[in-house]
Order: sequence, then structure tokens, then C-alpha cells
Amino acid sequence: MILQPILDLVTICANKGIKQAILSPGSRCAPITLAFARHPDIQCRTISDERSAAFIALGMAQQLDNPVVLVCTSGSAAYNYAPAIAEAYFQQIPLLIITADRPAEWIDQWDGQTIRQSDIYGKHIKTSFNFPDEFSHKDKVWHAHRIVNEAINKANEYPAGPVHINIPLREPFYPESNESFEYNDVRIIDTILASPTLNDVSKIQLKDKLSQHQKILIIPGQQKPNDDIQDILDLLAENQQVVIVSDVISNLQSEKTITFHDHFINSPEIQESLKPDLVISFGKSIISKGLKNFLRASSAEHWHIQPSGYTPDTFQSMSKIIASEPGDFFNLLIGHLPENNTYAKAWKHHDDNIKVKLEKTLNEAAFGEFKAIHKVLKHIPSQAKLHIANSMAIRYVNMLGSRTNEVISNRGTSGIDGSNSTAIGCTFTTKDPVILITGDLAFFYDRNAFWHNYTFSNLRVILLNNHAGGIFRLIEGPSKQAELEEFFETKQQLNASNLAKEFDFEYELILNENDLNQSLGHFFEENTRPKILEIKSESHNNAEILKWVKKEIQKI
Amino acid sequence: MILQPILDLVTICANKGIKQAILSPGSRCAPITLAFARHPDIQCRTISDERSAAFIALGMAQQLDNPVVLVCTSGSAAYNYAPAIAEAYFQQIPLLIITADRPAEWIDQWDGQTIRQSDIYGKHIKTSFNFPDEFSHKDKVWHAHRIVNEAINKANEYPAGPVHINIPLREPFYPESNESFEYNDVRIIDTILASPTLNDVSKIQLKDKLSQHQKILIIPGQQKPNDDIQDILDLLAENQQVVIVSDVISNLQSEKTITFHDHFINSPEIQESLKPDLVISFGKSIISKGLKNFLRASSAEHWHIQPSGYTPDTFQSMSKIIASEPGDFFNLLIGHLPENNTYAKAWKHHDDNIKVKLEKTLNEAAFGEFKAIHKVLKHIPSQAKLHIANSMAIRYVNMLGSRTNEVISNRGTSGIDGSNSTAIGCTFTTKDPVILITGDLAFFYDRNAFWHNYTFSNLRVILLNNHAGGIFRLIEGPSKQAELEEFFETKQQLNASNLAKEFDFEYELILNENDLNQSLGHFFEENTRPKILEIKSESHNNAEILKWVKKEIQKI
Repeated sequence: MILQPILDLVTICANKGIKQAILSPGSRCAPITLAFARHPDIQCRTISDERSAAFIALGMAQQLDNPVVLVCTSGSAAYNYAPAIAEAYFQQIPLLIITADRPAEWIDQWDGQTIRQSDIYGKHIKTSFNFPDEFSHKDKVWHAHRIVNEAINKANEYPAGPVHINIPLREPFYPESNESFEYNDVRIIDTILASPTLNDVSKIQLKDKLSQHQKILIIPGQQKPNDDIQDILDLLAENQQVVIVSDVISNLQSEKTITFHDHFINSPEIQESLKPDLVISFGKSIISKGLKNFLRASSAEHWHIQPSGYTPDTFQSMSKIIASEPGDFFNLLIGHLPENNTYAKAWKHHDDNIKVKLEKTLNEAAFGEFKAIHKVLKHIPSQAKLHIANSMAIRYVNMLGSRTNEVISNRGTSGIDGSNSTAIGCTFTTKDPVILITGDLAFFYDRNAFWHNYTFSNLRVILLNNHAGGIFRLIEGPSKQAELEEFFETKQQLNASNLAKEFDFEYELILNENDLNQSLGHFFEENTRPKILEIKSESHNNAEILKWVKKEIQKI
Repeated sequence: MILQPILDLVTICANKGIKQAILSPGSRCAPITLAFARHPDIQCRTISDERSAAFIALGMAQQLDNPVVLVCTSGSAAYNYAPAIAEAYFQQIPLLIITADRPAEWIDQWDGQTIRQSDIYGKHIKTSFNFPDEFSHKDKVWHAHRIVNEAINKANEYPAGPVHINIPLREPFYPESNESFEYNDVRIIDTILASPTLNDVSKIQLKDKLSQHQKILIIPGQQKPNDDIQDILDLLAENQQVVIVSDVISNLQSEKTITFHDHFINSPEIQESLKPDLVISFGKSIISKGLKNFLRASSAEHWHIQPSGYTPDTFQSMSKIIASEPGDFFNLLIGHLPENNTYAKAWKHHDDNIKVKLEKTLNEAAFGEFKAIHKVLKHIPSQAKLHIANSMAIRYVNMLGSRTNEVISNRGTSGIDGSNSTAIGCTFTTKDPVILITGDLAFFYDRNAFWHNYTFSNLRVILLNNHAGGIFRLIEGPSKQAELEEFFETKQQLNASNLAKEFDFEYELILNENDLNQSLGHFFEENTRPKILEIKSESHNNAEILKWVKKEIQKI
């Protein structure tokens, strides 16, 4: 027998615009699985490893800007979702996590697959509900409907994020053969969202404050591409009214913004000329540690624009939180800020200088992962989505300047644990190429991303295999320790050829620059199968090359 | 600079008898990593996937009966430990989990790899500490030492389990080249454990109560092998004073105990003659759902013996908790219980009957996973440790009667998520053969168990590959649903041949009974490499065979 409130849950999801669910197999969750699988308006996929399932859902929700449902059975299954839920929480991606559970009386009675699931995601979930476990009183049905409505509203409410409904279920879990299975009409509670708009008094005050500043830096944090904001920022930069320093995950890089800052911001000789007196940030985190340290050491004021929610003090200098839409605020700036040729030109000078030198230096550099990424990026199709794994991959890409492709990276928690799965989730939402640039540790860590029966022929993996966590050789501390290879780099032997066979990838192995040039001629072409381009390099060579490049570009 | 209290932490661990640590790579955790790696008395291994790392530590601690240390970096790494921590919590296995963190002021400031790690394991940890983040006052050093002592004491205290120390760390993370690195003497707080012993009054009262019962069932739950208890129970059973119904995870099966109950306990015709008037349990959970349901439906009293801690009411009939060591209690029974030939014989009759019929029926049965496991079990070397994955593997083994090998299975949460890793952990503690019997879903789910640089040549994997979660075809509900293959069985295509190549296993593929007979002649022999015996079968055939066997053995 399937409880009507379980069917109603799915009806409410569908009526509130949810179109995708990722299910993981289980018996306790069978009523929920069936209710989702049979609903005509929700597309379901099943993924056996819940850790990958949750990152796949995250990768989908990130693109769809709409909650994706996750369903798993009781027990440790729910805990395998946790890494992706933490990522979704900090990256502000809406997920509706549904876990099947035993009813309360059977918790802690040593029945199988029973853990303590209420509030299991602790401080990494926007809100957590326990679904009623019986419906003898009509208020219980009302409560169930209210929970689902509220959960979805909360997932979508700014800042978006994961919400959890824990559903206690008793046997029988399966419908009788003659049992009707009807999705009835259920009342939904719609939310009409409004944008916070600055009032005239605030605007006048802000303009007044702005006029007191000469050197204004705008720092966009991680966000999705936004043409309107890009246009405003480009205009401001073009007029030399502000300087925009943009990491690659801001998706707001252009020829007008500063993008090579990682190469010069640490230099004491030039820092003085670049110091702002006002920093304005919006969006989420930034990558560049050098930029963070530079801003923390400066005495500039810091304003952060964010419609609502908790605001971090990333640069230890925040003095104003502007609770508006960023676009609304930036419109205010146009025409109301003086040009500051000197300040804008100082930044642009260093940025342009590095751009030219880096191109030249990389052309002359020995072949390794830095040069390889540089070459690969030149061949990325214009409409491709670019997924970048954490650790060195994202750092290299950030060092290589302006990108026009959408760049996606799990910078909420900056883990290496779900980058394959996030990219797979992305392939489920688009026919455009999805390109994952990743290192060997992140890649093999999350190989279960590929362990399912759904096609992802538009995936192209650029695998930088140095058989280790190469980052540890590139930073100073660990590279000097006797334990470097075993306990930091953790040398690993795998290459991707067997994996490619298992999961039916086309596979190309790149050993040198010539191989790479040949492959890049066709690698991004359409294909019926996904592809892996494995670029083999030596960790210690990569370290030498990076050091050499950094030294060369500092020369006059 | 490495903080002395971090070195002291390791000294306390070593002085309190901890000998093993599993580290996962990271930068924030570098001081802890180095402090463990350089200590002469603690053996360290590094495992990149934290989910596997934690199950490996669990598999070791389970064998060693001593806490194993886990160390990971900040961020989602900590959450990847969670599935194993829940398993350790419910299986009562001591683990000392050490997570590196940023200091409190940097939480929620959008720095990389920063989540909310305090109390992250919620209700699945015995206790959770936050290590001091500075040591300017001498009390802070005392506090740090106290935390480590207390954490280890708590992990060991009955019931054993996981404890967590979250360590906030500031840069620099690495020692200077000329920095001394000394493990000083540190005071440790030792715990001298005492066993709870029943006093004479209690003994007289218990004897009095016992004398009121004629039909006494003893149900040992999951536990490690214990020769003393085995001897007492065998004696009681031999004298027909009690009936001992033992699942395979009790590690107390013998020729004297009932082991085929799963085949007859559901039969309404014979249940009447088997009904107890007193059930005495000890240890942790049992597997047999039939036995649980039988006992829940009986009107018998239930006593549970457990020295301390929370006691579940698994059969909904508990009336007495005996807070003593089980051995202490069972010694009381010897000579003080009358024989009950009729009752003991009724159980033995059905058990013996099934034993003979099952052997005969399986010999006649078509080849499939049931018959394969039956044959494999006959060839297990006597000194081998037997790891059994959840879902069908453990059910089949439990149906096949008395085992003398130590049987290990993750029945704390009964997940499929860490069985390979738990077995790998076991191989790190013994030179004896470690045999893992597993299904394809559990096996591929946890393949990162093998992704490291340590040898495990004593591992023998029996992989029952039906390319699906075959259990869903064997239980009635899902097998009737249109969604069976996609959403319950979740058909998967992999076989283990590529995996065997990747991780340097010897690999044999078994397609029929003849193949199996040939392989079993040599499969368990010593070797320099681990081995996989992949037994291929069809999910629907397995379902038919199981149904047929069950029907045949019910015949007269």
C-alpha cells in the first residue's frame, strides 16, 4: 500500500516546478521511489553510490537553478549524501533531500539500516523536517502537505540551498497489484519573490559615500554568468571608474576586467600603487589567496552586496552590507563616479604586462600540465560548460586569464570529492559539450560518477595525471618534508585506460606536446561516446616549470 | 612550526597503546600528519578517499580491539568519514577521529575547505571535542592533554565507539628545516577497567526467576569469537537445558547450536512447539528477520545481558536488563536449570532436518549464487577471517548453517558502503587469509578500498556478480513492480576484470559449476597477489533457484 501523502509529496514537487529526481536503490524508500518514478512530469534516474548521486543532483540543480530531488533508503545511505550537501549549502544550490527512515519507535532497536536520521545534516542544511508517520487525523495530511511546500520554498529562497525531509515508513512498502495509484490535486503554496530595491534616501547616502572614494575595486565572487551585470561592469571598467578584479569562477571575466592578478598581487614593489580605498564585493567566494591577503593587509573599507542571508567578512574589513540586488546597486554607479585614470591604468598595466609575458613564457616553457592546460583552453568550443576540479586544476585555470565559457567549480567547500559527479549532473541538463579539467586524485576519487546506465556522450575529460596530489610539491612547506611522497602527494599508480574501457569512454594518452597538438584538432568534436584526454606529466617537472614560469614573467 | 600540544597528542596516543593510524592527505592537517608519521611507535598508512580510509580504520580496530586513529584535513573530507563513523558507533568499534580545522574566527568567512566541523558527527559519535587553538596560558596545554586522554578513554569504555577531536590550526603548518621535533613526556590518565559482577542476592533472585521457566532460548547477537562463552553455551545446549539460536554473526555457532532457523522459523505449523517462555540475549544485533518476528509474536519474557549502555528492546518484550558480563551470568545457569528434552529436541529436530535436506537439495540444485556460496564455504581455510557484505551475501551465508571461521559483517548500520574497505583493514592486521564474500553492487560501490600503495596479498574476494542488486528480485514486493530492473535492481554492467588489472589482483571468472570446482582447488592457496573469484549468475535464475530450494526443503 502506498500512502496517499507520499503521492501528494510528488504532486506538490511537480506542481512547484521540480522536474528532476536522482534516486538510489533501497527497500525502505520503495514507496517514494515508485511515487517519483511513476509521475509523468518528473524525470528519474537511479545512481547506486549515494555520494555520487548527491553530487550529480547538485550538478543538475546548479544548471537548472531549480531544486533537484534526491531519494535514498534508510541508514548510512543518508550519510553518503553529506559531502555534497555541505557543498550545496555553501555553494547555495537548491536540493530537496528525501531520506526514508523507520518510524521513531524503531530507532535504536538494532533493526537493520537504522541510524539517527533526524537532523542528520546538522549545520549544513537550510532546514530539516520529519514527515508524519501516520495519517489517522486529517491534520496530519495537512502537516505533510505543509512540510513539502515549505521545504521547496525554503530550498529556493535566497540564498538557495539544500533542505531535508526525513520520511518514516512502515511496511508494506509496495502497492498491491490491483492498487490504484493516483496523483490527486493538492493545494500548493506558491511564493511570489520580490527583489530588494534600494530606496531613494539610501541611494543618495550611498552616492555620497561613494564620492569619498577614489580607488574602487570591485571583486565579484563565484556566481553564474549574468550578461546584465557583465555589461554594467564592463562599462564601469571601460570608463576607468572602477577596477574589477575577477577570478575565473566569477563568470564575469572580460577583456575589461583584471584576470592575471594571481601573478602580480603578491609583489611588494607594486602593491602600493594598487591599494584600493574601497572594495565592493558580491557573489560568493574567490579563489586567489594572494588577492585575499592583499585586501586583508590594505586599510580599505569593504562593502558587500547581497540581498539577504549571512555575510562573511572575507577581507577582515567589511563596514557595509548592502542588502540589494547587485545590478540595482551597480546601476547607481554609472555616471556617478569620476574616472581615475591613474589607478585603473596601474592595474591594467600589470595585467596586460603579465598577459603578454605569460603567453610568451608558456610558449617557451617545457611541456607539462601548465602548458597543457594553456593549450587545451584555446581549443574549448565556445558554447561548452567548463567544470574545473579543485586543487591545482582550478588554480592553473585561474592563472591563465580571461575565460568566456561558463566556469563551474565546487568552491563551496573546495573538496576534490565530487567533481566528476557534478560534471555528469551537468551533462544531464544540456546537449552542449561539458568539459571537465581535473587532476588524477580528484578523478579516481569520484569514479563512481560514471557507474550508472545513463549516457553522457557530451562529456570531455581533460585528466592531468601526475600520479599524485601535485599541489603538495608546488607549495613550499610539504615539498621540504621527508614525508612528501607518501603522506602529502600520496603517489598513486593508476592511469585512466582501464576506467575508460569500463565506462566506454574514448581514450587518448598524451605524453608530449606533439601528441596534444594532434589530439586537440579533433578531441572536442561531437561523438557518440564521452572522451578522456589523459595528459601524463611528472610532478617534479610540473613544479620546476611553474617555478620557472613565475620567475620568467617577473623579469622586466 | 609544529605546536608541541600536537606532538603531545601523538605521545599520549602511543602511551595509551594506540599503534595504528590511517591518514588522508591534506594541507591543513599537515602538522598532525607529520606528528603521527614521525612517531616511532605508530604505524601510519595514507588513503586518499576518506570514505574508504574510515572503513579501513574500522576494519583494523575491529580486529585489534583498540582504537585506530583517523586524520583528515578540513572541509568535506570530514564528512566522507561519516558513513563509517555511524557503522563504528552502532557496531561499537573504537576509533579516534582527528579532523583539522580552521580556527573559529575563520569559519563561515568563505575561506577554502571550511565547513562547520564542531559536532559534525551529530548523534553518531560517543563524544566530540574542540582542541584549543592557542596555548598562551598553561591551562590550555593541560586542556589539550586532558581532551586526548579523555577521548581515548571514552573510545575504549564499554560500549566502545568512535570519538572526535576537531583541531583548529593556523599557518604555518610545516616545521622549519632546523626545527626540533620532540616527543616529550606527557602525563597520561590511565583507566583500570573493572567487570560488573552479580552479587549473591541478585544471583539467588535470578536463579529463582530462572526456575520459573521451562523453555529458554538464548539468542547471541553480533560479537567477536569468545571461546569461554562458546564452551559454556555448548555445555548448556548439550545438557538440553537451553536452546541456543545463533546467527552467523554471533560467532558462537557450533554443532550444538541452532543455525538453520531461517528455513523453518516462519512455518506456522511448527512455531507452536518452538515457542519459548524466556528469551535471553546478549551481544548486538541479529540478522534473521524471521526469528525477530517469531520472538515479537511470542509472549515470552526477554532478558538482555549487557554490562552497561543503552539497551534496545529488539523483540518488544524485554523485562529485565542484566548489567553483567555474559559469562558471569551463564556460569550461573550451569547445573541450575532442569533439562527440557522435549523443547530442546523439537528445535534440534527441525534444525537437523533442514541441515540434511538443504545439503541434498543444494547438491541437486541448478548452479547459481546459492550453490556457489555453499561450495565456497566448504573450502575456506580454517584460520581465515570471513568478511561478508550486506544484502544477499550475508543472508545466504546465514542460511547455510554453522561456521567456525570468524565472521565479520558491517551489521551496525547494515550498509553496503564499506565492505571492501573493512576487509582491507582486516588484512592490515593479520597474515591469515581474509576472505570477502560480496555482491556486485557492494563491491563496485567501495572499489576505492584498493586505491593505495599497501599490499593485501592475503585478500581473497568471492564476487557474486548478478549485475544487479539481486535482493530486490528475491523479496516479493519489488519483484512485481514494473520498475524492478531500473529502480530497484539497478542493473549494472561491470565485471571485475578491469578492476583486477588496475589493482593487480589475480582474477578468475566462474561461469559454471565445473569452473568453480576447478578454481576452488587452488584459489585459497597463498600467493603474492590478492585474488578475485568472480562468479557470474543471472538474477532471475538465482531467484528461481532460491524459491525451488525453499520449496524442496519443506517437503516431508
